[in-house]
Amino acid sequence: MTPDEFRTHGYQLIDWITDYLEHVETQRVSADVQPGDVRALLPEHPPRETEPFDAVLADLDRIVVPGLTHWQHPSFFAYYPANASGPAILGDLLSSGLGVQGMLWATSPACTELETVVVDWFAELLGLPAHFRTDGAGGGVIQDSASSASLLAILAALHRSSDGAITERGLTGRHILYVSTETHSSLAKGARIAGIGAENVRAVGVDPKTLAMDPAELDSAIAEDVAAGAVPVLVCATVGTTSTAAVDPVRAIGEVCRRHGVWLHVDAAYAGVAAVCPELRWLNDGVAEYADSYATNPHKWLLTNFDCTVMWVADRNPLVGALAVHPEYLRNAATSSGSVVDYRDWQVSLGRRFRALKLWAVLRWYGAVGLRSHIHAGLAQAAELASWVAADPDFELHEPRTLGLVCFRPRWPSLPPAEADAATLRLMESLNASGDLYLTHTKVGGRVVLRMALGGTRTEARHVRAAWDTIRSGMTSAL
Amino acid sequence: MTPDEFRTHGYQLIDWITDYLEHVETQRVSADVQPGDVRALLPEHPPRETEPFDAVLADLDRIVVPGLTHWQHPSFFAYYPANASGPAILGDLLSSGLGVQGMLWATSPACTELETVVVDWFAELLGLPAHFRTDGAGGGVIQDSASSASLLAILAALHRSSDGAITERGLTGRHILYVSTETHSSLAKGARIAGIGAENVRAVGVDPKTLAMDPAELDSAIAEDVAAGAVPVLVCATVGTTSTAAVDPVRAIGEVCRRHGVWLHVDAAYAGVAAVCPELRWLNDGVAEYADSYATNPHKWLLTNFDCTVMWVADRNPLVGALAVHPEYLRNAATSSGSVVDYRDWQVSLGRRFRALKLWAVLRWYGAVGLRSHIHAGLAQAAELASWVAADPDFELHEPRTLGLVCFRPRWPSLPPAEADAATLRLMESLNASGDLYLTHTKVGGRVVLRMALGGTRTEARHVRAAWDTIRSGMTSAL
Repeated sequence: MTPDEFRTHGYQLIDWITDYLEHVETQRVSADVQPGDVRALLPEHPPRETEPFDAVLADLDRIVVPGLTHWQHPSFFAYYPANASGPAILGDLLSSGLGVQGMLWATSPACTELETVVVDWFAELLGLPAHFRTDGAGGGVIQDSASSASLLAILAALHRSSDGAITERGLTGRHILYVSTETHSSLAKGARIAGIGAENVRAVGVDPKTLAMDPAELDSAIAEDVAAGAVPVLVCATVGTTSTAAVDPVRAIGEVCRRHGVWLHVDAAYAGVAAVCPELRWLNDGVAEYADSYATNPHKWLLTNFDCTVMWVADRNPLVGALAVHPEYLRNAATSSGSVVDYRDWQVSLGRRFRALKLWAVLRWYGAVGLRSHIHAGLAQAAELASWVAADPDFELHEPRTLGLVCFRPRWPSLPPAEADAATLRLMESLNASGDLYLTHTKVGGRVVLRMALGGTRTEARHVRAAWDTIRSGMTSAL
Repeated sequence: MTPDEFRTHGYQLIDWITDYLEHVETQRVSADVQPGDVRALLPEHPPRETEPFDAVLADLDRIVVPGLTHWQHPSFFAYYPANASGPAILGDLLSSGLGVQGMLWATSPACTELETVVVDWFAELLGLPAHFRTDGAGGGVIQDSASSASLLAILAALHRSSDGAITERGLTGRHILYVSTETHSSLAKGARIAGIGAENVRAVGVDPKTLAMDPAELDSAIAEDVAAGAVPVLVCATVGTTSTAAVDPVRAIGEVCRRHGVWLHVDAAYAGVAAVCPELRWLNDGVAEYADSYATNPHKWLLTNFDCTVMWVADRNPLVGALAVHPEYLRNAATSSGSVVDYRDWQVSLGRRFRALKLWAVLRWYGAVGLRSHIHAGLAQAAELASWVAADPDFELHEPRTLGLVCFRPRWPSLPPAEADAATLRLMESLNASGDLYLTHTKVGGRVVLRMALGGTRTEARHVRAAWDTIRSGMTSAL
């Protein structure tokens, strides 16, 4: 592609994206397609000869867009938001355009050093402890996802608990990972990947009301496992669970961990970024004193395109110890000097993109003030929606309610629980099938509840109002 | 950022990238910076208020670019190339602009189905077996890197060898991974991550000339380990090693694996893509009959921006079995129907970007014909350089030479081996410090050799000639 062709198609694509994002709300939120529909529209064989870029754009409109679920749609309330924003898209574009690969400091020093600065800035913006900064014993790094951060925390914990023996000789004996019944499935996945095994993930009970982990139960679980000869490796405390945004008591959990010498990982994937607002720093109470590792996702609620999880460790040695392998072809003077960070030793992969650019662009475009106002907008939308749900006799609001998530269920007064749950799922499916909005569900105390996550980049009060009207009228027709 | 602002800054950035790539050869290849130099130019604290996008662009020119090693520079010959190209950059931009997240088929059907089509197309382009296609028992998936692909192959192999018991109950007993002394370090890293341990990675010897794994030694190693009560889990055969692009005898290794019931992973990260040229399909001899998993990187030599590794498995069940965890909040009708692929179960992370777009854009822009001509250009450059090296009495060419890599060393006739190696490294460092070109080194038979990888998107014959002249004259001054 010549420079002129790149410029021409680049402009075209910028126009296309501008238009897409400006008018995304005219699309159905979720795709009205059946399995295989998209595939059937695509050629069975790859092209032999070159095709013009316009052909890609035409197929984009004709085949791809109608088959998408539009995560940037203002009426996308499913899962948690995956906030894209203009500066993040441009930062990502810059990363692709530069095409550098920052596995080592030496393979592109600015790629590493800008990342270090940006994650240090970000720790400051969230009020996280100084020992997470890279100029101390710890440090931050951008991962693709909180799942990877959880896995890496497990590996670092195994390294520390065995003084490196597991890294060298492999796992032997039973190692236990502690989560709550509400913890994200990535911890269970991480335990499988690390060789701990699904069975050795112990789900500690939660307070039935707050759904926050019970530290006393954690304490006895650890004691019991130790007595039985197992090795407690890591406890994951969650700040903002996926189901209901429940917040585990990090401080109390941290005290238990400290007592037993167990690694504390704090998974604040969703809620951690809310601490850009000083009045929400309570979310991280206990992190400074007790967390060995911490992860939060600017790619969820903080206007930064997926993938961008920031992970910090209080001490980088066990992480690097678990992962560093030094083949001859990667040896270089800077690494040998010990004076640089090589982020390849902080992640699963060797290669890495220049992801810091998008977070840098976002932090500078919005500034602390702008980021706070984005979080406040999501909080206000959620509070307003919750007030409508609470005031409506046909619905029951899940409380306590946290941050930008609203969980609720229709009451279906005449139906026994199992049938009521089925009716709730049918309501959700019909709402989603309408294309007007997109919700997901979870279970709380065994009962199906609907989840609406607010705080999308393009979501305004009117979209929340319209969604609630749609839900209300769906409920009325179903009753 | 308003639509108009996005359009304005988007155009600006497209211009910036067009200009950067058009003139990248006027830059030094590697940065002339010391550890901390870039950081020192950046503010210590994050911005409180919004800053204009122009401020980011200004800092890009002033701080970031001078601190980069320019992987897209035509005189970047280090490592293997990380080929960016216009269509790949635009495909990546599209992915960022759409901002969809394809963890499940349901979360964006076109994201999953386009990926399936593109990896099936790609298997066809490389002449890989039909059972790698997603309409059979196997299937393909885009990973971030070959490191992740290796790790996933290990996990699938552990799952299969234990009939799922390891996934459930964790690792017990000794499990052995077989590599050669030349295999990429990601296998050792994968063994640590999976809990197998660094010690249980057994490096089988290689033919001292070809540096290809010795299948007979592999056979006895496996037999010996089995006799000692260990479980052989996976053999990694490499098609194009990192050091010298050596090609392991996949067929002979596959026969050994079949006999012992061991998983065969083929790491064709660098060389696999060369099979777009039918005359190079010998590289994959034995893959169709024996490979349980296979990975190659369009992001190395095939014009597709990092990150884009395509991984295939002959049977998807052990992979999905090792990784699938089904929390309530991810349940959906499409998944329950069993009629869709959910790629979250094919990777470490839960979330995923729409990476298929860039590979789709590349395959369509170049077509099979264009991709072949790109590979041919790299081969021709390498052959020409090798002929100069071979003809030069001051240098020794490493042979056999494979594909786009040229390995060689200065002869330093008056120096004993250790001093000669030190002189070679000094020569390399002074060449790299000149900023005119960028090389790396490795060791072959204990001796330092220089590596020059050809095939960069912007590398022309004149750049190779200039590089060789620079190396020659560096050598002359050093002698």
